[in-house]
Amino acid sequence: MALNYAKRMDNIKASEIRELLKLTQRPEVISFAGGLPAPELFPVEELKRVAKEVLEENGTAALQYGPTEGYEPLREKIVERMKKVNVDVSVDNILVTSGSQQGLDFAARIFINPGDVIICESPSYLGAINAFKAYEPKFIEVATDDYGMIMEDLEKALEENDNAKFIYVIPDFQNPSGKTWSEERRKKLVELANKHNVAILEDNPYGELRFEGEFLPAVKHYDTEGRVIFLGTFSKIFCPGLRLGWVAADEEVLNKFIMVKQGADLQSSTISQMEVAKFLETYDIEEHIEKLKKVYKKRKDLMIKTMEEEFPEGVKFTNPEGGLFTWVVLPEHINARELAVKALERNVAFVPGGSFFPNGGNENTFRMNYSNMDEERIVEGVKRLGEVLREVI
Amino acid sequence: MALNYAKRMDNIKASEIRELLKLTQRPEVISFAGGLPAPELFPVEELKRVAKEVLEENGTAALQYGPTEGYEPLREKIVERMKKVNVDVSVDNILVTSGSQQGLDFAARIFINPGDVIICESPSYLGAINAFKAYEPKFIEVATDDYGMIMEDLEKALEENDNAKFIYVIPDFQNPSGKTWSEERRKKLVELANKHNVAILEDNPYGELRFEGEFLPAVKHYDTEGRVIFLGTFSKIFCPGLRLGWVAADEEVLNKFIMVKQGADLQSSTISQMEVAKFLETYDIEEHIEKLKKVYKKRKDLMIKTMEEEFPEGVKFTNPEGGLFTWVVLPEHINARELAVKALERNVAFVPGGSFFPNGGNENTFRMNYSNMDEERIVEGVKRLGEVLREVI
Repeated sequence: MALNYAKRMDNIKASEIRELLKLTQRPEVISFAGGLPAPELFPVEELKRVAKEVLEENGTAALQYGPTEGYEPLREKIVERMKKVNVDVSVDNILVTSGSQQGLDFAARIFINPGDVIICESPSYLGAINAFKAYEPKFIEVATDDYGMIMEDLEKALEENDNAKFIYVIPDFQNPSGKTWSEERRKKLVELANKHNVAILEDNPYGELRFEGEFLPAVKHYDTEGRVIFLGTFSKIFCPGLRLGWVAADEEVLNKFIMVKQGADLQSSTISQMEVAKFLETYDIEEHIEKLKKVYKKRKDLMIKTMEEEFPEGVKFTNPEGGLFTWVVLPEHINARELAVKALERNVAFVPGGSFFPNGGNENTFRMNYSNMDEERIVEGVKRLGEVLREVI
Repeated sequence: MALNYAKRMDNIKASEIRELLKLTQRPEVISFAGGLPAPELFPVEELKRVAKEVLEENGTAALQYGPTEGYEPLREKIVERMKKVNVDVSVDNILVTSGSQQGLDFAARIFINPGDVIICESPSYLGAINAFKAYEPKFIEVATDDYGMIMEDLEKALEENDNAKFIYVIPDFQNPSGKTWSEERRKKLVELANKHNVAILEDNPYGELRFEGEFLPAVKHYDTEGRVIFLGTFSKIFCPGLRLGWVAADEEVLNKFIMVKQGADLQSSTISQMEVAKFLETYDIEEHIEKLKKVYKKRKDLMIKTMEEEFPEGVKFTNPEGGLFTWVVLPEHINARELAVKALERNVAFVPGGSFFPNGGNENTFRMNYSNMDEERIVEGVKRLGEVLREVI
């Protein structure tokens, strides 16, 4: 039997990361592949308490349908969180989503006709690229340096593509590059979006995980016309298993997201929303985030130091000020997919970088995560990678 | 500022039910509008226990990312549940979704190019129609009698539309009509789908809530070529607040659903999946379902009896053998949307039927839910509706 699928399905492939994650679940594998938080830091005891309290105080409401927009007390808490990145919004600007991944899918659904242009950083987040592809866009990649997109290149892309619908950016500790946009570029980005009447999709899963350098406001802070759509998530500052994130946007745009959410899954989990709201009310999440940052900084420093010691000359990598990833660039003739096979033979995993470029190429790159493995495994894994690298370079 | 949205957004409107639900949250409103289960029957104490156990036994895994396909022990439990509707599948045929609403969205994404045809019952489920509309299909409605779609009409629709991609049906206690397909029609449906090489999307949220009449196997039971995609949910037999449902399908088709799920939201909540699996392992859900059926049958009987007593002549309604809804047909000159306004003035709510017809018309119909209100409110609400009806007829 061969059923007749929609044309868009030709573009949709299984995510390389999700497939890799299956392989890396064997306990002997040292995995730098996923973007997984450190599980030993999850607030399990605290969640046990809030789960009990939510069911005791409000059990029937917790198990019933709720509004599509989200549980109002959680939306209020999210309004408070937005102040941490210098963004002033009200409850009417917030939609609770099932992780920020859902916000990526919805954004493309709302803006993209087949053939429309999405402008993104080069490289960009693989999960976003895959989500967008279902809507058959054309991707224009804009080169980046250490301060964000090259603005001349962005301007040129906007001038040459009047069907550009949004600019997708991860301004803080970008996935996969680990780089952070300067304040000047953030302002200029908004200015160019205003001039060309395109939306900005600001994906900010790691913004609060800065462990070095100076705080910078979100791009949405500089939004003068309500065209920046901000995606936030509890996956990295709390835990990913509950699948809760949010969209913060101008009311007109947010209403589109709400209507799409109705059709997509009606609403996010009522009980999970109540649990997170209760957690934020009962505990000091800032303290929890401080704890995360301390551990992640230590792991990042150790990974960078070990890479400096173990990786052969000609291998470059970023030293991020926050977030979960460092990005490795190999000499051009080395293919990271082939390298990944060799590394897996020694039970070490990473994500080859090619898939982070929507238009292909750049196979001499890979992404390394440092949040999920303990220090011993970081040292051991990087050492083994160093061995593999020295064999091929 | 006017952003430039995708063409598909012209088709997407706010769901009338979800908007109505907001109005009906005032405690003085007697609402027959939503499809809400009886909250007083939610297994709150049981969930408290399983939530505690899941976090104690497996807390870090519960809060971490998990596989897109779903938590394997839950998928195994779903395989067992499928046997209740005489469907024999394996774990590899099951994807856990965020409610069966998500399965509806994914099905349209997988099959529908703009202009492709979806064949559905007339009337059909409003939430499905809205989900499908995002993919710009053409709807062909097929008339139904008390045994399901009229097969001659279905055959004609298939012959005239070679771009028909799937037939969407709710064979058990249909939403909104309350009607159930006969065994003969189920078989014939599969036969016609085979002949014309289209998929069947079987939406089965209420199948296990049969409180009268004879059990019938799911349409998927009669599937000979792997073309029936079955959507199930825990919303009606357990609780909707956790947002968990599933797709059961042939592996080739299921792989498409899995890839779409990756882009859409990566996976459903790990902790919720573990809680439901633990609940199904610890408690007897059949016993719980028996309890639901007893209460719902009583409420349904009472609603039908009161409607018979209070509604004026010329008003017709179905007497369902299960599920949550009865369907009311008024004399043709009566507009149920206008009636709904009058009813809301007396604090009674229902859903006008027009929105259940994707191509419009049939404004002389409405849907009544009997699962969510207690007996006293059912009698009082139907009485008030009777008064309103006698004023206009």
